[in-house]
Amino acid sequence: MSEAATAPLQRAVIGDSEFDRDTAVTRREPGVYDIDLSAGWTIISAVNGGYLLAVLGRALGDALPHPDPFTISAHYLTASQPGPAVVRTETVRTGRGLSTGQASLYQYDGQGNEVERIRVLASYGDLDALPDDVRTTAVPPVLPPMEQCFGPEDGPAPIDGSNAIVDRLSLRLDPATLGWALGAPSGKGEMRGWFGLADGRDADPLALLLAVDALPPTAFEIGIKGWVPTVELTAHVRRRPAPGPLRVAITTRNLAGGFLEEDAEVWDSEDRLVAQSRQLARVRLG
Amino acid sequence: MSEAATAPLQRAVIGDSEFDRDTAVTRREPGVYDIDLSAGWTIISAVNGGYLLAVLGRALGDALPHPDPFTISAHYLTASQPGPAVVRTETVRTGRGLSTGQASLYQYDGQGNEVERIRVLASYGDLDALPDDVRTTAVPPVLPPMEQCFGPEDGPAPIDGSNAIVDRLSLRLDPATLGWALGAPSGKGEMRGWFGLADGRDADPLALLLAVDALPPTAFEIGIKGWVPTVELTAHVRRRPAPGPLRVAITTRNLAGGFLEEDAEVWDSEDRLVAQSRQLARVRLG
Repeated sequence: MSEAATAPLQRAVIGDSEFDRDTAVTRREPGVYDIDLSAGWTIISAVNGGYLLAVLGRALGDALPHPDPFTISAHYLTASQPGPAVVRTETVRTGRGLSTGQASLYQYDGQGNEVERIRVLASYGDLDALPDDVRTTAVPPVLPPMEQCFGPEDGPAPIDGSNAIVDRLSLRLDPATLGWALGAPSGKGEMRGWFGLADGRDADPLALLLAVDALPPTAFEIGIKGWVPTVELTAHVRRRPAPGPLRVAITTRNLAGGFLEEDAEVWDSEDRLVAQSRQLARVRLG
Repeated sequence: MSEAATAPLQRAVIGDSEFDRDTAVTRREPGVYDIDLSAGWTIISAVNGGYLLAVLGRALGDALPHPDPFTISAHYLTASQPGPAVVRTETVRTGRGLSTGQASLYQYDGQGNEVERIRVLASYGDLDALPDDVRTTAVPPVLPPMEQCFGPEDGPAPIDGSNAIVDRLSLRLDPATLGWALGAPSGKGEMRGWFGLADGRDADPLALLLAVDALPPTAFEIGIKGWVPTVELTAHVRRRPAPGPLRVAITTRNLAGGFLEEDAEVWDSEDRLVAQSRQLARVRLG
């Protein structure tokens, strides 16, 4: 598959793209935001958790005096559906370098009552104000070149239900982590790939919140076919990503008692570790 | 140093030990708890973050219908001091297998106003109700035998200020991660050791919340001498620990922009991974 075949005719830019439009929140009153959750970011029957995190992250970025999520912890309560939602934020503390906020996303039941979907706690800062020192032992994941990785057009849809999110992403997965799609999971809890937005918009901190939860679950490579709903996900944004595709590597080391952790790291085109995340997910065996 | 020299004459038990007394909360009204934060768990001038997490964890365990923290995310707002505090909890959602709660710990300023110290979001379950399946690629840290590891009595106090917490722990650190104490940090962001409570009380899930933040910071081995305050810490408790000493390994891979992550894992005497944590900490370069 050639690069040209998938490149959008005109690249979208940060601030004017599908991702920006679908995560845009409208301030109803100070700290309260309305949004219509897009059906474009669903997977199976649920709205993707990373998209939801980006929505909450955008609301908090407006409500807090600092612009960028440095660390955001989300507890997923009930499954979100496409449609109207409201985000209620609270400023917990404002400091010179960091401010902390809380936000909840609610949808409505048949009687119009608010039902809480997700609650997050987050500390925000200004990535552009950080010094450029780096002392790291972390190394980027080794991935084949993008043209040797696989996208959704290279095989049958691997799962039943909505795959809408697939059309909005430019995901190219490392064949070494795609055994599950051929019925031969490797048994290793690893998933790796190139990540971008389909319309060519470059990544910003909010897109990193999407990126950490956008690959197929590592559980597929462990041989688990069912749904693996996130209980909690915490993401650290460590640097504003450079333009260009991202590399995402996800690892699960310990599946036990029906739960597993998924550790994600995201690297930018300048070989910088731009985000780390860990989630606790529940394995629905059966 | 012989084992006998440090073993308490009579081992404390879970429920009747210094750790239990110092984390005990008194219900003032439903969901609201008073506590007198003990000076026994201070390090330098601050109350240890793991001890505080255990206090909040105990309050939530009382307030929620499930007993055990499965995942708890704490954002540290202002430094806690020994003395009176109040914990206010909120039940966010109760489900069959998991319930989610929020809690904040407040202390008082000179005028008696509440000042928030920490806020946590947590999902609780029942560890004893989980199936005993384990599929893991994680392996316990390789540590020298306890008698070849070093405790506080083996050297001068490494840092200025209070070391009260040291007397309440039975920490035996791997000499390979103690270069900093001899003025020769390894440059690797690793810290490993045996962990127990000094009075011999075995670990339970609340003690795991202490264990993930009880070792010296990995930053010391990177050559950073100053304080490394936690911005956010999330801990997953994966299993009720077996009796006996724990092994704790902490790793930092990426120091950048004045922040670093610390990943901790805790293993029990049956070689089970009983807890994982990650924190984002701020480097105060001096």
